[in-house]
Amino acid sequence: MGLDKIYQDLKEGKIKPYKLEEVILEQAFNKDINKFLEANKEAVGLRLRLLEEKTGKKYGKIRDGFVSVADKEKGTVGIEQQIGGAVVPLGFGGPLKVIGEHVNGEVYLPVATNEAALVAGLTRGCRAINEAGGIRVVITRDHMTRAPLIEAPDIKKARELSGEILKKGQVYNKMKEAAEKESKVSKLLDIQPFQSGRHVHLRFYFQTGDSMGMNSVTKYSANAVKALKEVYTWVKLVSLTANMCTDKKATHMNVLLGRGKSVETEILIPRKIIKEVYDVEPEDIVKLNYLKNYRGSALAGSIGGFNANVANTIAAMFIATGQDAAQVVESSSCFTNAEVVDGDLLFSASFPCIEVATVGGGAGYGTAKECLDMLGCAGPGTVPGSNSRKLAEIIAAAASAQDLNLIAAESHGYELAESHIKLARGK
Amino acid sequence: MGLDKIYQDLKEGKIKPYKLEEVILEQAFNKDINKFLEANKEAVGLRLRLLEEKTGKKYGKIRDGFVSVADKEKGTVGIEQQIGGAVVPLGFGGPLKVIGEHVNGEVYLPVATNEAALVAGLTRGCRAINEAGGIRVVITRDHMTRAPLIEAPDIKKARELSGEILKKGQVYNKMKEAAEKESKVSKLLDIQPFQSGRHVHLRFYFQTGDSMGMNSVTKYSANAVKALKEVYTWVKLVSLTANMCTDKKATHMNVLLGRGKSVETEILIPRKIIKEVYDVEPEDIVKLNYLKNYRGSALAGSIGGFNANVANTIAAMFIATGQDAAQVVESSSCFTNAEVVDGDLLFSASFPCIEVATVGGGAGYGTAKECLDMLGCAGPGTVPGSNSRKLAEIIAAAASAQDLNLIAAESHGYELAESHIKLARGK
Amino acid sequence: MGLDKIYQDLKEGKIKPYKLEEVILEQAFNKDINKFLEANKEAVGLRLRLLEEKTGKKYGKIRDGFVSVADKEKGTVGIEQQIGGAVVPLGFGGPLKVIGEHVNGEVYLPVATNEAALVAGLTRGCRAINEAGGIRVVITRDHMTRAPLIEAPDIKKARELSGEILKKGQVYNKMKEAAEKESKVSKLLDIQPFQSGRHVHLRFYFQTGDSMGMNSVTKYSANAVKALKEVYTWVKLVSLTANMCTDKKATHMNVLLGRGKSVETEILIPRKIIKEVYDVEPEDIVKLNYLKNYRGSALAGSIGGFNANVANTIAAMFIATGQDAAQVVESSSCFTNAEVVDGDLLFSASFPCIEVATVGGGAGYGTAKECLDMLGCAGPGTVPGSNSRKLAEIIAAAASAQDLNLIAAESHGYELAESHIKLARGK
Amino acid sequence: MGLDKIYQDLKEGKIKPYKLEEVILEQAFNKDINKFLEANKEAVGLRLRLLEEKTGKKYGKIRDGFVSVADKEKGTVGIEQQIGGAVVPLGFGGPLKVIGEHVNGEVYLPVATNEAALVAGLTRGCRAINEAGGIRVVITRDHMTRAPLIEAPDIKKARELSGEILKKGQVYNKMKEAAEKESKVSKLLDIQPFQSGRHVHLRFYFQTGDSMGMNSVTKYSANAVKALKEVYTWVKLVSLTANMCTDKKATHMNVLLGRGKSVETEILIPRKIIKEVYDVEPEDIVKLNYLKNYRGSALAGSIGGFNANVANTIAAMFIATGQDAAQVVESSSCFTNAEVVDGDLLFSASFPCIEVATVGGGAGYGTAKECLDMLGCAGPGTVPGSNSRKLAEIIAAAASAQDLNLIAAESHGYELAESHIKLARGK
Repeated sequence: MGLDKIYQDLKEGKIKPYKLEEVILEQAFNKDINKFLEANKEAVGLRLRLLEEKTGKKYGKIRDGFVSVADKEKGTVGIEQQIGGAVVPLGFGGPLKVIGEHVNGEVYLPVATNEAALVAGLTRGCRAINEAGGIRVVITRDHMTRAPLIEAPDIKKARELSGEILKKGQVYNKMKEAAEKESKVSKLLDIQPFQSGRHVHLRFYFQTGDSMGMNSVTKYSANAVKALKEVYTWVKLVSLTANMCTDKKATHMNVLLGRGKSVETEILIPRKIIKEVYDVEPEDIVKLNYLKNYRGSALAGSIGGFNANVANTIAAMFIATGQDAAQVVESSSCFTNAEVVDGDLLFSASFPCIEVATVGGGAGYGTAKECLDMLGCAGPGTVPGSNSRKLAEIIAAAASAQDLNLIAAESHGYELAESHIKLARGK
Repeated sequence: MGLDKIYQDLKEGKIKPYKLEEVILEQAFNKDINKFLEANKEAVGLRLRLLEEKTGKKYGKIRDGFVSVADKEKGTVGIEQQIGGAVVPLGFGGPLKVIGEHVNGEVYLPVATNEAALVAGLTRGCRAINEAGGIRVVITRDHMTRAPLIEAPDIKKARELSGEILKKGQVYNKMKEAAEKESKVSKLLDIQPFQSGRHVHLRFYFQTGDSMGMNSVTKYSANAVKALKEVYTWVKLVSLTANMCTDKKATHMNVLLGRGKSVETEILIPRKIIKEVYDVEPEDIVKLNYLKNYRGSALAGSIGGFNANVANTIAAMFIATGQDAAQVVESSSCFTNAEVVDGDLLFSASFPCIEVATVGGGAGYGTAKECLDMLGCAGPGTVPGSNSRKLAEIIAAAASAQDLNLIAAESHGYELAESHIKLARGK
Repeated sequence: MGLDKIYQDLKEGKIKPYKLEEVILEQAFNKDINKFLEANKEAVGLRLRLLEEKTGKKYGKIRDGFVSVADKEKGTVGIEQQIGGAVVPLGFGGPLKVIGEHVNGEVYLPVATNEAALVAGLTRGCRAINEAGGIRVVITRDHMTRAPLIEAPDIKKARELSGEILKKGQVYNKMKEAAEKESKVSKLLDIQPFQSGRHVHLRFYFQTGDSMGMNSVTKYSANAVKALKEVYTWVKLVSLTANMCTDKKATHMNVLLGRGKSVETEILIPRKIIKEVYDVEPEDIVKLNYLKNYRGSALAGSIGGFNANVANTIAAMFIATGQDAAQVVESSSCFTNAEVVDGDLLFSASFPCIEVATVGGGAGYGTAKECLDMLGCAGPGTVPGSNSRKLAEIIAAAASAQDLNLIAAESHGYELAESHIKLARGK
Repeated sequence: MGLDKIYQDLKEGKIKPYKLEEVILEQAFNKDINKFLEANKEAVGLRLRLLEEKTGKKYGKIRDGFVSVADKEKGTVGIEQQIGGAVVPLGFGGPLKVIGEHVNGEVYLPVATNEAALVAGLTRGCRAINEAGGIRVVITRDHMTRAPLIEAPDIKKARELSGEILKKGQVYNKMKEAAEKESKVSKLLDIQPFQSGRHVHLRFYFQTGDSMGMNSVTKYSANAVKALKEVYTWVKLVSLTANMCTDKKATHMNVLLGRGKSVETEILIPRKIIKEVYDVEPEDIVKLNYLKNYRGSALAGSIGGFNANVANTIAAMFIATGQDAAQVVESSSCFTNAEVVDGDLLFSASFPCIEVATVGGGAGYGTAKECLDMLGCAGPGTVPGSNSRKLAEIIAAAASAQDLNLIAAESHGYELAESHIKLARGK
């Protein structure tokens, strides 16, 4: 059967769009697995043709943007019903001098964004930082979490279960063993129970190497719950997740206890540099940081949003490097700090939950891999986790540079949007 | 001067990367403005070459992804220091039957994502909805906000200022006039003062047509503050924004009072369909919605994150359609609701602050424009604002479909991640 | 029938404890309504006797604390099943110089508390303030709220209802008329709809004179909803309150939009005084206010708790003056501010929702009335609302004095709890 | 010198009010320490006389309410500048059948309140619970916290310090030893570091027996920090508390990680009883619990306030039993749950942070001690902590009864405030 016939069937609903790769491989390429990538490409084409016909428009640029995420070996496609690629303008900011534990030197920052002023502002922030010798970065926590919801028969049994796990004895060990049995890299770090009535949220903490780890830890947590059920036959699993993980929602849970990497950045910037680059005094920045990033955010009812705007850089670098863009929601939590120390500006930023990967998901191919190459952390690190930690250090440093620039520019007190915008752009 | 010489200067730091377009136009094209797009393209090439040399890697795919966002007339480029394009895999979900006020019919949903299971889960949710007749959508609020921070000499004067604005008399009118004077489409809807000590956050509400509007309302708000200063000479503008807007941070402010579009979706799904598609009863979904989306999120300390996972679809459609990806932070706020009504499932979702545009930013060109074409809402609407409202209706409907699918799949009580994942993928 | 027989019946469960007043009046005093207070007193005695017998203990001090809150005319008792009075140690702080709009001069502050150090710390704060000329106070909002939950048939009808109310046309006017018809003093100020799916929370705002007003506005809101049902027969009242009021729960709703009185206090304290009273510099206080009251509280996930400890004074004055002690929960919301202005300390505090009364509830009799007398605001004000506003001004001023003292004492950097406590006590 | 002369000096400001006891003892009683209580009483009288003269009012009831809290041995008075007692009407609710681990049987509930309907509603809730066999209660956490703020020279040193403590090695042990050295009862359970920039909040967890413990753990934490400084000489103590404890402010910290006692209550109430007592079905209660206590509270931006109104009972019992009334702020955090299980109502409530004591503060004397006697838990327990745990169990049970009553009454759908109020009162 030729592609035209297949398309006919697709149009008539006889073939489901997501089945196309399978059908093409079978019917056009005689199940020759070596043709899998080709089949994928053809399938993409047919689906796009279908949409063009259905909607009466042409999608040439989407077609041009095609990225193959099919896996020849496994005979699967990375994302289903692919029709091509969405292209986001990519620029670079910096270079930025980052003094971390996995990176030490000047880094060019790839940013995928539609926001005109982002690069300029970011780069200006980098300039102030570089002149002051570079920004120091440390990672204080590193774990991925998943929190299945358990139902016990009553509040007493729920407490018993929690207590047993907290003791880190036999039950905990059995769960740990089960959690790690299918894992090559990931290690269970802890299980933290949160009781609510007869229910217990079990928040599992894993170290997951260079992958972001959410899918794998779901599986490992499920295995651990199965082991728990062998001990307590009354355990009922309500759901593998019940929003205490917390994934892709803004919660104080993540802010307080971390998810992904918790990263701290810090730099002492001489008054002279602040004055020269921003034409303000450190005290102006300290004041605005208090009035805007703390009192303003507090009055607005924020959870974790105590910064000027780190989300821009984080979103732009997440898209550039193939991260899960929906995790910008929590990864952009940040507490920006500014103090005057001995006349100079001590500027720092706390990022409690940056969730990034250099393997898995979108990190392994296409422009994302090239951007990771640009940062020197594509693929698995020499030590498991070292590349994803390097990436977290760089993103936190970049977001700090942007936030420094923004709060400094705004503290200048410009009363015209024009000049405000102009300065934000760093010219 | 040829391009090689320019590159030499770039490498030696004599030319700043963001100045390249200007230099090339001047030196290689004799300031011929008609060559601006070409200059932009050359500049992109030189910058990429620089990065390749600096980092010792090749960036061919980034180069292929180049999207010119230059504006020949204005002599500017959309984003600065562009080096190409970041490509995100694009698939489609649906079709989904949406019954809104700006759309009524089946819609194919373009989603740019690295997450394998997203399309399948989304499409399965669409199927349940379509079988039940389609999802109803209404928009309840539509405004973009900006909140400059004013400093008065004391708390009494701050109160006087607030009171005067609340009266909607002469002072308010003067500010409104100033706010709208440079605007073609945008209208000032309201100014809401929030006093804190001698400071007042003035939250401006604008209707901004089909653009997202944040940049323009910054300017309009600045103009209004200038007018206010003419009345009260003691008014001091601390900053044009102090996190009460709130942009790109998770705050209850946006959840309660709205930003962008507030969208409600709703559908009554017969028990039979729920049973058939998900093999659960409506009561199972109601229970998990309560335990996970409310009690779980409440215990996790969430602000606006009372849903299973709408962020995935929202992020994927934001990237596909050229929105500001950092605004996923607040746009993914959602309250998912599930009740049993006369034996069937009444499923609904409230999105208090979806910020989208069909003109401006990344919406006007490239794959983003094609995706908007696919949704039938590229560019300005026939009535100002109608296209961006259509887009908001579709995104909310799609995110609802995804959330229905996820909560239904999870309420099945699967205890193995494998089958959980399998069902989530909709097969 | 004598009291002994009645007690016998009480013990045997033939008479319910809360029926005692009625029975005694009827059987021992031949329904002579003039004996009601006496009957109340005897009932209290019998109930206490019952408890003494049941629990085998003596409650002489509770008996001594008996305060009759019976109303001879209405034949009711203030609280049911009264057995006496709970006595809380009462001290006084201050005097404090308060420069408000309803009070201007030195005020002695009655505080009912078990906390040893409260008076001393409060008084020391007063001293610093008095030396600096007194604290300025203004009230910026004054309203009591109640928010019934309405169910509409669908999201569109819910929007229609909200829209109609927002228009402030016929429907709103009809509701306003109904809301005010049984009221002598209270006026409806506004109705604010918050839609969530097909449900609408209608937040009613009333000015309630000198009473706290929660009970009366419940009734008035119910009347308004009845009027609404006449317009929209499909309106279903789910509940007269659904936590959007919000009463006695910590919510950002109250912090942002106010409940009770929103009060601002402010004082510029010369550096010399700060130095002399606390042996610190204004900068020390500014720093700790930032690190503790903002960054610390933000990291702790607070809503409205951006102060050192205003709850102590607010609770102590609420109990002293007969307020609803459970409303300390929201009334103690406070944003404390500290800035250096021209070398001196500008100290201020924002209290978004202080809920107080000088009539009704516990305000009208006993020691509470005497404490209100001490503050010069017992009973209804000459202008309705003026006394309760005076009380709010004084409480906010007192809480500010306490918070100033605490943050100043803590910023001294004492490393020993002993000296810390000593200074907090103001010696 | 006689009392009149002393009063003269007091009036003229020569004697400070808080010094009166000392002066009287010295001058009127020749320093005879056996006369201390008498001196205290005279001092109270003189202060009240001063206030009467200053304000031109009479305070006879305050005088009658005088409670001596003086300590003859130590030569101190419980609260400073005492002028008498504030009397709050005291009634009783219940009896309530409580099945806890420190109490098992019917309990009479003393409530000090000005709210008329509280007793009746509470008692009605008790009736429904008693008929269903009593409410089960367990305590899941029990600790008092204090969180000093440490400043390290930089983010790396701050991480080092946190890491060292988390290791529970030598440094931790040294701190533990120092923390416990002055304590007779209290034990250090844990120290949890929360880093923010170069600062670390060290949250100390103590078991404090039957006292609430906040003052003592402040001292113990200070001692531990001193020990830490011996290890790390660069440690700087910014403040002994920086709002991460968190005391008397609503924070998610306490909700998530507990403070005081975390208590769970639970009861399965047969449908028949719900129907009989409230004339509703379990499903009505489940629905309103979702719409009001979760969706309503979530929309209102609550932290921990996911209940109908537990604060009333908690405040009333706190005042009755001599607790720190300002701690009602966090102690009233509660998640109320309602599910239909096998046709009946499973009602439960989670109280993450009830802070109570049966020794220390106001618990040891007067009406408070009598109320604790009534509950069978005055003074220290036979096992340290058992009495305060008993008290926490009872208060949680009582608050659950009240919340059951309120949500059930409101779910009846009464549309008239009158009947609503009537039912709430339980008649």
